[in-house]
Amino acid sequence: MPLTPEQLAEIDRHRAATQPTRRATVSALEDILYQPVPVLDHGFVRVIDYMGDDAAVVQAARVSYGKGTKRVSEDRGLIQYLMRHRHTTPFEMCEIKFHVKLPIFVARQWIRHRTANVNEYSARYSILDKEFYIPAPEQLAAQSKSNRQGRGDLLAGAEAAHVLSLLRDDAERVYASYAAMLNEDEGGGIADGHRQGLARELARMNLSLNFYTQWYWKTDLFNLMNFLALRADAHAQYEIRVYAQAMLGMMERWVPMTAEAFYQYRMGGAHISQKGLAAVKRLLAGETVSQAESGLSKREWTELMETLGREA
Amino acid sequence: MPLTPEQLAEIDRHRAATQPTRRATVSALEDILYQPVPVLDHGFVRVIDYMGDDAAVVQAARVSYGKGTKRVSEDRGLIQYLMRHRHTTPFEMCEIKFHVKLPIFVARQWIRHRTANVNEYSARYSILDKEFYIPAPEQLAAQSKSNRQGRGDLLAGAEAAHVLSLLRDDAERVYASYAAMLNEDEGGGIADGHRQGLARELARMNLSLNFYTQWYWKTDLFNLMNFLALRADAHAQYEIRVYAQAMLGMMERWVPMTAEAFYQYRMGGAHISQKGLAAVKRLLAGETVSQAESGLSKREWTELMETLGREA
Amino acid sequence: MPLTPEQLAEIDRHRAATQPTRRATVSALEDILYQPVPVLDHGFVRVIDYMGDDAAVVQAARVSYGKGTKRVSEDRGLIQYLMRHRHTTPFEMCEIKFHVKLPIFVARQWIRHRTANVNEYSARYSILDKEFYIPAPEQLAAQSKSNRQGRGDLLAGAEAAHVLSLLRDDAERVYASYAAMLNEDEGGGIADGHRQGLARELARMNLSLNFYTQWYWKTDLFNLMNFLALRADAHAQYEIRVYAQAMLGMMERWVPMTAEAFYQYRMGGAHISQKGLAAVKRLLAGETVSQAESGLSKREWTELMETLGREA
Amino acid sequence: MPLTPEQLAEIDRHRAATQPTRRATVSALEDILYQPVPVLDHGFVRVIDYMGDDAAVVQAARVSYGKGTKRVSEDRGLIQYLMRHRHTTPFEMCEIKFHVKLPIFVARQWIRHRTANVNEYSARYSILDKEFYIPAPEQLAAQSKSNRQGRGDLLAGAEAAHVLSLLRDDAERVYASYAAMLNEDEGGGIADGHRQGLARELARMNLSLNFYTQWYWKTDLFNLMNFLALRADAHAQYEIRVYAQAMLGMMERWVPMTAEAFYQYRMGGAHISQKGLAAVKRLLAGETVSQAESGLSKREWTELMETLGREA
Repeated sequence: MPLTPEQLAEIDRHRAATQPTRRATVSALEDILYQPVPVLDHGFVRVIDYMGDDAAVVQAARVSYGKGTKRVSEDRGLIQYLMRHRHTTPFEMCEIKFHVKLPIFVARQWIRHRTANVNEYSARYSILDKEFYIPAPEQLAAQSKSNRQGRGDLLAGAEAAHVLSLLRDDAERVYASYAAMLNEDEGGGIADGHRQGLARELARMNLSLNFYTQWYWKTDLFNLMNFLALRADAHAQYEIRVYAQAMLGMMERWVPMTAEAFYQYRMGGAHISQKGLAAVKRLLAGETVSQAESGLSKREWTELMETLGREA
Repeated sequence: MPLTPEQLAEIDRHRAATQPTRRATVSALEDILYQPVPVLDHGFVRVIDYMGDDAAVVQAARVSYGKGTKRVSEDRGLIQYLMRHRHTTPFEMCEIKFHVKLPIFVARQWIRHRTANVNEYSARYSILDKEFYIPAPEQLAAQSKSNRQGRGDLLAGAEAAHVLSLLRDDAERVYASYAAMLNEDEGGGIADGHRQGLARELARMNLSLNFYTQWYWKTDLFNLMNFLALRADAHAQYEIRVYAQAMLGMMERWVPMTAEAFYQYRMGGAHISQKGLAAVKRLLAGETVSQAESGLSKREWTELMETLGREA
Repeated sequence: MPLTPEQLAEIDRHRAATQPTRRATVSALEDILYQPVPVLDHGFVRVIDYMGDDAAVVQAARVSYGKGTKRVSEDRGLIQYLMRHRHTTPFEMCEIKFHVKLPIFVARQWIRHRTANVNEYSARYSILDKEFYIPAPEQLAAQSKSNRQGRGDLLAGAEAAHVLSLLRDDAERVYASYAAMLNEDEGGGIADGHRQGLARELARMNLSLNFYTQWYWKTDLFNLMNFLALRADAHAQYEIRVYAQAMLGMMERWVPMTAEAFYQYRMGGAHISQKGLAAVKRLLAGETVSQAESGLSKREWTELMETLGREA
Repeated sequence: MPLTPEQLAEIDRHRAATQPTRRATVSALEDILYQPVPVLDHGFVRVIDYMGDDAAVVQAARVSYGKGTKRVSEDRGLIQYLMRHRHTTPFEMCEIKFHVKLPIFVARQWIRHRTANVNEYSARYSILDKEFYIPAPEQLAAQSKSNRQGRGDLLAGAEAAHVLSLLRDDAERVYASYAAMLNEDEGGGIADGHRQGLARELARMNLSLNFYTQWYWKTDLFNLMNFLALRADAHAQYEIRVYAQAMLGMMERWVPMTAEAFYQYRMGGAHISQKGLAAVKRLLAGETVSQAESGLSKREWTELMETLGREA
């Protein structure tokens, strides 16, 4: 359970109150505002706030005095035009803020997206809960043989059981040591009066990278798409991809026209290299082209054939 | 008049509609949402959208599940603590978007603040209106003799009149040439059928830097304060300072506790150098300190004495 | 002539001195270091400094203790892999600094690339020279009829002559007024003792956007490629494209392997949308596909056919 | 020992080669180029590359055609002026690149400085060495009672011994499990043929935050100073402060005039709040001012008195 009953009650209270506003408002996103979507075994992601909508993209592109929107079909066309031609600044005019609970090793990948604002729960200042990530059996994969940073077959039987027990026992142990070194009771007082307790900023280093942290993460719609294009992609590590996928659903509620254009012109398309394009032209002209003639490497050729839906 | 009756009517329509929202809402800012505050002779600044409030700063600093606020006095204290210790990230959790109409030479200074999102009206794509900035007589200053990038005494009499007529006549003339080169009628058609009309992306280069442009400008609260600290300062050029001052008033409506802390710990305070601090200590100990002994330059000494409210 | 004999002599003196260094050094770039490449009628671009080379990209990707390079073929392969998979951070490990002289309207486009460091010559502090851009006859184009931000046919005859004289006369006139308002002689003293002279920060606003400014502009190799991909593209305005093209030549000298990969995987390739890809697959399977069936707009269909080298 | 003999030999080879360059070169920094300065028990920091020097700051501020420097005293004065008035862009014209080996929990603080370029050793792709940080006895401090994110008295006797053994034993254990789960031998082959081995991207999550990682970190001089002002400060956690202090020494070698101004106007000075300044003025006028009258909180009053070298 990623949240305590007290936290859920606090969220419900927060959701109950509404106020009138003159700002652009998206009811499909309001419907789920503040509500956590569970991710992994103890994590979640939830939308905390947002600014703007599809019309705000249009409004900015037109530098308008009012809402900026015209007919729906014109707005959709403009958004598609902007996405297609990589006019990025109108998408920067919308902003969204998430509250995310995630394992530290996922946070370390995530933070590499620099054009965002972050407030992380401080283990220098506070004490982390005993919550750590253990992969589900269907995620317990061996090292890939072909891709040095990927996963291969699933582990099974005794090996899987052994790995899970190592992960679980080590996490239990490092947390027990963490708590013992801190020497604090539940109220923040001293547990054992004969000891002082290690400084929090030091004790935290004993925790392993599968422990959960949490943060507020805020970014604009353009940089959100950059994040999602990379992290919702099949090449992303599973443990960050599930967060990106949950956020894609939130983006669809928020800015449906932009989401549609995003799938059409970024996620769903393909970039073909100069040599790849030359090969496609020859194929379209009815010529036979081999990998060797194309000038592409074997891996590139395989990928191109996959992109074109042909056998390599 | 910075806005046409049509534009004002569009703004009124935009203001008339309200929707319910679960988001943090600031009624003092809603009161003026979309309304232009006039600046200079044809410019304005108006708030188009905002995200968050003082409580959102507190909420982010606490990475909370609900509103994050406790008693008002605790929230105020936390915001002051954050400002005082330059904990910048909680202030990045609020965002604001402005629509600004401003002379191009002001836009050129403004754009140097890079941590912001901008959509400018494109003179490559559209035609600029005939609106240019002419300083009011009380701003028509001579070059400062002591500060190479400052103003001195006001121009007067024949010189002032001559400068104003040069500025006005030249602006009229470059716009007339711009229009003639474009060769477009009001509907976007060709004015003189014997000419083709110069491309807009070329014709615009004939306009002078006092012509007005406009943009949507969006930034977070921390970077807004960086902008205001620099541009609302007495050393800023008057023509950008008046925009910053109008925006300061908007910030006070939006995040009053943060604004109070901003005046207390940034705008209203002073940074004293290592040698300056040594001089202050000696003065407090009752010693007499001269500029020469202090190790400070004459200008630094003068500034320090001003900061301390003493005669140099 | 973009530079005075004094400036050229200063550059020659600067070029004459060499020192030994342990840093990565690129002799092909050293050969042209500090030398201005003329652009437009009075502009130039020159490399002032650089950090790193192709090997530094490789070194960073491998987080190595030494040079990081292995055999040339492996290094080339790694750079192509990084470019192909958009692994951007190793390219950020190289840095380059340019000195550019450019018309103000070009500077206004250029500055929109925010991930760069800039120091511009200050017309608030100093006096601008009388140098302005006048398009060559082969660049004096009419507004495009199909593309609202593009150029169409060349102007000719009387219209061309009229446009050129308007541009030239207006620039002469606004500069004459600028000089008159400043009331400074060559040594920075007062020209006419009966007048005070307008502050520089005000007088500059009378200049038009085709006047030249200059700046130091520094960026990393990844963001340089973002700049070049956009500005050396055929859709960029001619007046900024010529700068980008000159800088492409400098990049080829500096990091030839990266430049090769940049042409192969970014400049020379094409991004095909989801629907576009579906159409390509059907065409490759021997089917006939019409624009209407494809789901693509007419413009998209035309562009796709151009990309594929087929008639629309 | 932070480096192996092989790595040290590779560094020596790298240092042995010099080439002639026309670029700005700083011999005091060349002297230590590539050489690791040990930090903590297994870490280090070393300069890998640099661009520019004090003269480059001056050159950029003057947008000059040559070296930009005049007499030493004028250059020093200009650099002090720029620092004092927070003219940041000329300092952005210098760039430096470090190779750092550091514990993961330190890397997590460090990465919050976003205006930098980073390439980190990937534990998704490669295997981390068995190297973890254990605090020296003189750093093994209890939680501070007055500052929730600080350290208090040193732990001693049995408690210190117990903490050290917990830290050490847990680190040994999590690494042993990590190695067991990976199931790789030294050459990257499979250790135990009956097991597949867990994917690296999963196994790494079992390591604790005191394990060492390493990265290339590159930033400009202005952002380096922002980093150092925060992290070399007495309030920074010891484990990051020691890196910042080592880097301060490198900065002194690189840009001695800038370093001098940095100490004088940023590190060595103090920012005094509006109410604090009012109190200082009254004290200088010979008045007695109490904390209560000053309007300052107790903590602020104490800090002000410390700044002024007076008893609270």
